[in-house]
Order: sequence, then C-alpha cells, then structure tokens
Amino acid sequence: MSTTTPTLSSTPRSTPTRLRERARSDRADLHAVLDAGLVCHVGLVRDGAPVVLPTGYGRVDDVLYLHGSTGAGWLRMLDGAPVCVTVTHLDGIVYARSTFHHSMNYRSAVVHGTARVVRDPDEVLRALEAVTEQLAPGSWTHARRPDRRELAATGVFAVDLAEAAVKVRSGPPGDDEEDIAQGGRWAGVLPVRTTFGDPIPDPTLPAGAPVPDHVRARR
Amino acid sequence: MSTTTPTLSSTPRSTPTRLRERARSDRADLHAVLDAGLVCHVGLVRDGAPVVLPTGYGRVDDVLYLHGSTGAGWLRMLDGAPVCVTVTHLDGIVYARSTFHHSMNYRSAVVHGTARVVRDPDEVLRALEAVTEQLAPGSWTHARRPDRRELAATGVFAVDLAEAAVKVRSGPPGDDEEDIAQGGRWAGVLPVRTTFGDPIPDPTLPAGAPVPDHVRARR
Repeated sequence: MSTTTPTLSSTPRSTPTRLRERARSDRADLHAVLDAGLVCHVGLVRDGAPVVLPTGYGRVDDVLYLHGSTGAGWLRMLDGAPVCVTVTHLDGIVYARSTFHHSMNYRSAVVHGTARVVRDPDEVLRALEAVTEQLAPGSWTHARRPDRRELAATGVFAVDLAEAAVKVRSGPPGDDEEDIAQGGRWAGVLPVRTTFGDPIPDPTLPAGAPVPDHVRARR
Repeated sequence: MSTTTPTLSSTPRSTPTRLRERARSDRADLHAVLDAGLVCHVGLVRDGAPVVLPTGYGRVDDVLYLHGSTGAGWLRMLDGAPVCVTVTHLDGIVYARSTFHHSMNYRSAVVHGTARVVRDPDEVLRALEAVTEQLAPGSWTHARRPDRRELAATGVFAVDLAEAAVKVRSGPPGDDEEDIAQGGRWAGVLPVRTTFGDPIPDPTLPAGAPVPDHVRARR
C-alpha cells in the first residue's frame, strides 16, 4: 500500500488473528502510539534466529528512523534487511476475579518493513533531528549538532510505515458472569504511568547552572 | 552452558561488540532485570522476517515462561522455534552538550533460546503462577485459579535462561572535553520512572469494596 493512505495495511502478518476489537486501523493511531514513545524494540534475523534490541527512534511523516554507532553489529546487518519495530506503552495492570482474565491495558504498534540505509546528507540530518527530538525534545536546538566526524560514526536507517498493526486495550477486566456474581474478589485496573523525576545536573556543570525549560518543564 | 552456572554465556550473539563496559555477566543481574519487568518483547521469525510482540512473562529459577491464548497465531509458531525475549527498563534520558552523546540510562536483558511447549500439568501451573505474579503480585492467591477449560485455552512456553546478554547504562553523559569547556549548554539526566496510579475499581464491584493490600500497597 501507499504510505500516504490514511489506513494501515491489512496483510496477513499485520492482521490480528484474535481480539480484533483491540485492533486500530487509522494511520493517526499509529502515529500517536509511535510519537508517545521513547524506546522501540527492533527485531531482525541473524543466522535464522530472531534478535530483539531496544533503541531510540524518530518519525518523519510516514518514515521511522533508527540510528546507532556504525560499530554496532546489529546496525551493520540492517541495510536491506527485513525488520520489525515495536513500540509498546503499558497503561495499566488489569486485575480480574480470575487469573485467566488478568490482562494489561496497553497501546502497541508493530511495524513490519525493510530497513534502508540513509545516505542523503539532508535526510540523515532530518532523521537525526527526529531521533533526538523523540528522546529529548528541544535538544536539537539546545545541544551542539553532529559534526562531520560524528556523522561518519553514525548509521541511520529508514523503515517505511507502510505495514503496521496497532493494538489498544483499555478499560476494566472482562470477568466471567459467574465470577462477578460470586463476589468476594477485587477486580479493577491499576494505572501504570511513565513519569520523569527531577533533573540531575551533570557534575561538570557550574554550580547553580539553570535547568533549561525544555528539560525542566518536561512532562 | 549450564543454566546453573552463575555467569552468563558469551556466545558471539550474546557478546556485545561495543560499549563492553555496559555489559554485565552475572546471573543475578539477569534475574534482577527480568524480575523488575512487566512486559517483554518476544521476537520470532515468520517467513524469514522478524516479528516482535509485547507480552507478559514470568521466571522460575532459570526458566522464562510465556503464555497466551491457543488461538493466537504467534503462540502456535513458538514450539521448537528460536526466540529472543528482551526486557528493557528505561531509567533516564541522558542530555549531553552534543546531540551525538545524547543517550538513555537503561537496564536490558536479551535472552536467546528455543521455545519449548510446556505440557506437564504441574509445570503449567507453576508457569502460570509465575506469569500471574510477575504482572500482579498476590493475584495467584487472591483470584480464582484457572479451571480445566481455561487451561485448555492457554498455551505455555518455556525458554531456558542459558544464553543472555545484560546491559546497563547509568550515570551522567559522556560529553567531549571541548564541549564541556565551551560551556553554555545544559547536560544531565532526567530520571524516568514507572509508577502506579490510584486503583480503578471494576464498575461491577459493590460500592465501597475495599482495595486489597496486594493492589493498594503496590509500589
């Protein structure tokens, strides 16, 4: 499918085989899940076996960008390789009357694609800006941007957001009627949140150096 | 290697090729990373391409357990398949003077193995207890345990913790001397934490039903 189509693909591997009510098919849902994340898990195949590694990422329109040191083994395997990039937000622990119906509230995006090495210098910079801003909004402006030597040490890869599955579970547990009727057991949701603590200044900063707004005000 | 050896294996795929100072080789470190988690990302290979899916898990000694509906496509592919199970904790956003040295503080465990379907009824129950308690400590005691029908609908898989890579990054950014000397830019760490909100009782509970300690006191 075209990457500009507003709905996601429904190829066999991106079509959930069960719990279809948890599936979302709007491209805006995919963007929302990706844009809210900090870490993705990248899957690739090495010698016939899967490898799953956590890393940062960024998005520009319908392209997901990954980056890393050119010295990293997994990065050297990426060019032209089939990859799966998954971003998951855990939103709550779902306590049911039965262990069987225990669950999680979550939002997840599973992107299937082929990694393409980015060589165009302008696209490299746009990608690094996206990856930096995803992790640390404001840093592309505040921090020193990469110089020639750093760019040479950085591999940048693109994955088109053409095929993806978005799943969302929210709300209370789905207990069986008999368990509800029996009573005596608690059920509900314990919300899970990702929060930021107080910034810890680098020890080499001058004493009293103010924490800039883009860090201090981050929520 | 034996699963009882206190150190982790150092096969090529579990030996970091760079940033070796972030690698940990103690089995206790592996257990600690796994035990602190709620979600893992399971990688498998389907038609030559990687698939990465988020799911719960549990640990008993040196065995990791996964479970899911027997109706789930990915679960049916697991028996005897090479898998990679990764658990990641994001601990902080590392702001550096340069975008190049921006990073994350994290703890991750990447487990490589082969999934084995669990058929022994006692091991199935131990596995489900571990998975339940990992997600919702106390629920194996408080909630109704699985009946015969539910057990028949649940697939349980084991992955031996024989080959794994644990990586930890902590502490301040690793800025270049020139950037530190130049001054004018903030650097430091913004801690990231996973926290629980106030429990949301199931709408079908009687009004005023007390939240049990294993949920209320969870931190």
